[in-house]
Amino acid sequence: MVVELISVGTELLLGNIVNTNAAYLAEQCASCGLSCFYQTVVGDNEERLQETVKAGLKRSDILILTGGLGPTDDDLTKEVVAKAMKKKLVEDKKAREMIQAYFDNRGMEITENNWKQALVPEGAIVMYNHNGTAPGLIVESNEKCAILLPGPPKEMKPMFEEYVVDYLKKKNPEVIVSTTVKLCGIGESKVEDMIHDMLENQSNPTIAPYAKTGEVHLRVTAKAADMKSANKLIKPVVKQLKTRLAEYIYTTDENTALENAVVDLLIANNLTVSTVESCTGGMVAARLINVSGVSEVFKMGHITYSNKAKKKILGVKKKTLEKHTAVSAEVAKEMVKGVETVSKADVCVSVTGLAGPDGGTAERPVGLVYIACSVKGKITVQEYHFNGNREKVRENATAAALTLMRKCILEYMTETAF
Amino acid sequence: MVVELISVGTELLLGNIVNTNAAYLAEQCASCGLSCFYQTVVGDNEERLQETVKAGLKRSDILILTGGLGPTDDDLTKEVVAKAMKKKLVEDKKAREMIQAYFDNRGMEITENNWKQALVPEGAIVMYNHNGTAPGLIVESNEKCAILLPGPPKEMKPMFEEYVVDYLKKKNPEVIVSTTVKLCGIGESKVEDMIHDMLENQSNPTIAPYAKTGEVHLRVTAKAADMKSANKLIKPVVKQLKTRLAEYIYTTDENTALENAVVDLLIANNLTVSTVESCTGGMVAARLINVSGVSEVFKMGHITYSNKAKKKILGVKKKTLEKHTAVSAEVAKEMVKGVETVSKADVCVSVTGLAGPDGGTAERPVGLVYIACSVKGKITVQEYHFNGNREKVRENATAAALTLMRKCILEYMTETAF
Repeated sequence: MVVELISVGTELLLGNIVNTNAAYLAEQCASCGLSCFYQTVVGDNEERLQETVKAGLKRSDILILTGGLGPTDDDLTKEVVAKAMKKKLVEDKKAREMIQAYFDNRGMEITENNWKQALVPEGAIVMYNHNGTAPGLIVESNEKCAILLPGPPKEMKPMFEEYVVDYLKKKNPEVIVSTTVKLCGIGESKVEDMIHDMLENQSNPTIAPYAKTGEVHLRVTAKAADMKSANKLIKPVVKQLKTRLAEYIYTTDENTALENAVVDLLIANNLTVSTVESCTGGMVAARLINVSGVSEVFKMGHITYSNKAKKKILGVKKKTLEKHTAVSAEVAKEMVKGVETVSKADVCVSVTGLAGPDGGTAERPVGLVYIACSVKGKITVQEYHFNGNREKVRENATAAALTLMRKCILEYMTETAF
Repeated sequence: MVVELISVGTELLLGNIVNTNAAYLAEQCASCGLSCFYQTVVGDNEERLQETVKAGLKRSDILILTGGLGPTDDDLTKEVVAKAMKKKLVEDKKAREMIQAYFDNRGMEITENNWKQALVPEGAIVMYNHNGTAPGLIVESNEKCAILLPGPPKEMKPMFEEYVVDYLKKKNPEVIVSTTVKLCGIGESKVEDMIHDMLENQSNPTIAPYAKTGEVHLRVTAKAADMKSANKLIKPVVKQLKTRLAEYIYTTDENTALENAVVDLLIANNLTVSTVESCTGGMVAARLINVSGVSEVFKMGHITYSNKAKKKILGVKKKTLEKHTAVSAEVAKEMVKGVETVSKADVCVSVTGLAGPDGGTAERPVGLVYIACSVKGKITVQEYHFNGNREKVRENATAAALTLMRKCILEYMTETAF
């Protein structure tokens, strides 16, 4: 079964944004066992969009369109698809109610153009949007099908996962099952080196490495007649990966992010946590608080970007700051000790670094970061050198802080087990 | 003059990599004054690549193809383009020498398949590759032109800048210039309502609205013979937008994000800032600290996710928490007062809310957020209702906090101006 992706949006044609939707959808479709031969980007132009949809319906079984579902006259995707598939547009009652509720909740007035979003091609499956106003649609006609999703990734992805994955799996009887083995604290090339023979000799299941910020994911994918047989193919490969890469693997669960793994460890070991951040400015805490169960263990977080705050809140010594500068192992250590004293948390983490773009020297270049982690008073400090711009340095430092926390908690568990 | 982008590569179709080349080239082409109506991704498949090239040559003046220029049998781009444009392949002497030198320099043996890369369509402009082995090509025929570039961004971008920019500028004397007007504190449909007539009657410049989290961007784009004339077309439109939407516009500068605008206001008015966050868990501070000049004004940040931390760090009263719950206007107010007392910052902001997925009730649903902002002691509290998952609620709350800070600082400025 062949799928084709059509991204609608002038901002893509102008290069204002990168088409991450296409990469996400392509990956998802591949793991649903669908072949994808074409991806097209086209603007909000009726004639060209029509031409693209027509060509797609001719050569592919399923079209997935993103973008152009909004309230403005510019948004044409639904209208063009309905016309190409010969469907009338009718109002969907629930969609109308949800648009009403969306605005009521915000205490905002609804402008007339918003009701356009409640119109759907007759007979379409309506995918209600919990993260925006435009509903998604699945339109079927003559063995072909068009799936219309909103453009913003934060609306598109949850909708795809809620509705489309199951729909595609039903359409394509062969199952493709994937397990993602997620690693932290190791680089992509090192991983590839350690499983070189497995990557060389793969067929079914396949193993695909993906580099993420501070992480490497290995996606193990098997094709089979049913779920059970696919899982049977995957199991020994995952086992082998676990044997080789044990210490770096923090999960094999698709929905577990690194922060989930850390919070799970904290909860399981009855450990509380506090954070103090300089260059990451709250990003470590924000990731921990991403986990909805974190309230059980999160004591407090501090952002001490200035030296004054470091001294005042954490009792970092003036002498230490002067002798070693704010970006040093010594200050990271005093920061973590400070937050431990203030919060009395079992696990504490501190981050101090030079995120740039200014402030770097030959000796202390931009990208230099120190992270300290204490578990019940035992402190570990690490030095890091990250590449990239301010944002990239901060994201890498955040991932490194979570990775170090995980490592220190695991060490504590090993020590206390005897 | 119309350009079309064709990216060749199976790894794009599988979603293994994001197509950043297309975004880069699209932006470059736009700033060379070229219109781009289509971007296509197609695999290393002769038939489908041929179909795509043929369709492109029919509807566009210039094709830019990336990828598929390498030494393997899979690499077909050059062969397919040569065939479509009826050109013989001949060996380019300099290209051959450069391939030889590339391998010699690395002390590597040349395998036979590498010589394929020295073959070029007869009469083509050869773009020598200083960062890899495959040369790029510009092939002209019947007023049409195909530009072939290597796939890896590190080879493609320098080659584009060395050869292609000048080539395109010569071909197209027109320029395209854009200005983005960025708004906060207003929804997309309300904006469109307020400038409906402008959107209806646009031609040159065009106005395109984009919804972002908590923001709306209006991109004003003009085409003209030169930069100066383009800016002359843009200026009155931006002026009109400013007249109609004044209070919501925080910048017209491409590189200024909402956090930059807030930090700029703080610095310009010599105001220090501190934050305290519950559900956003550091995201407001993290965005402020995204701005590299923030150290001048950022005093400290706190993350008080638990009631205990709210009491301990901020002195929020037990009675207030019991009577009104942690997610209330009263607690938001006490939080902001608390951080004001502790940090003595001029501007303080507090966020408390229910990000979900658990903890919501009919009276206090998930998505309920209170944000308080104080400027020199004067406190403003606002209630918000956000839709979406935990992440979405937190991102919306973060944008709303920055928006409220901006509003309160502007009010303070107006008041103190008299």
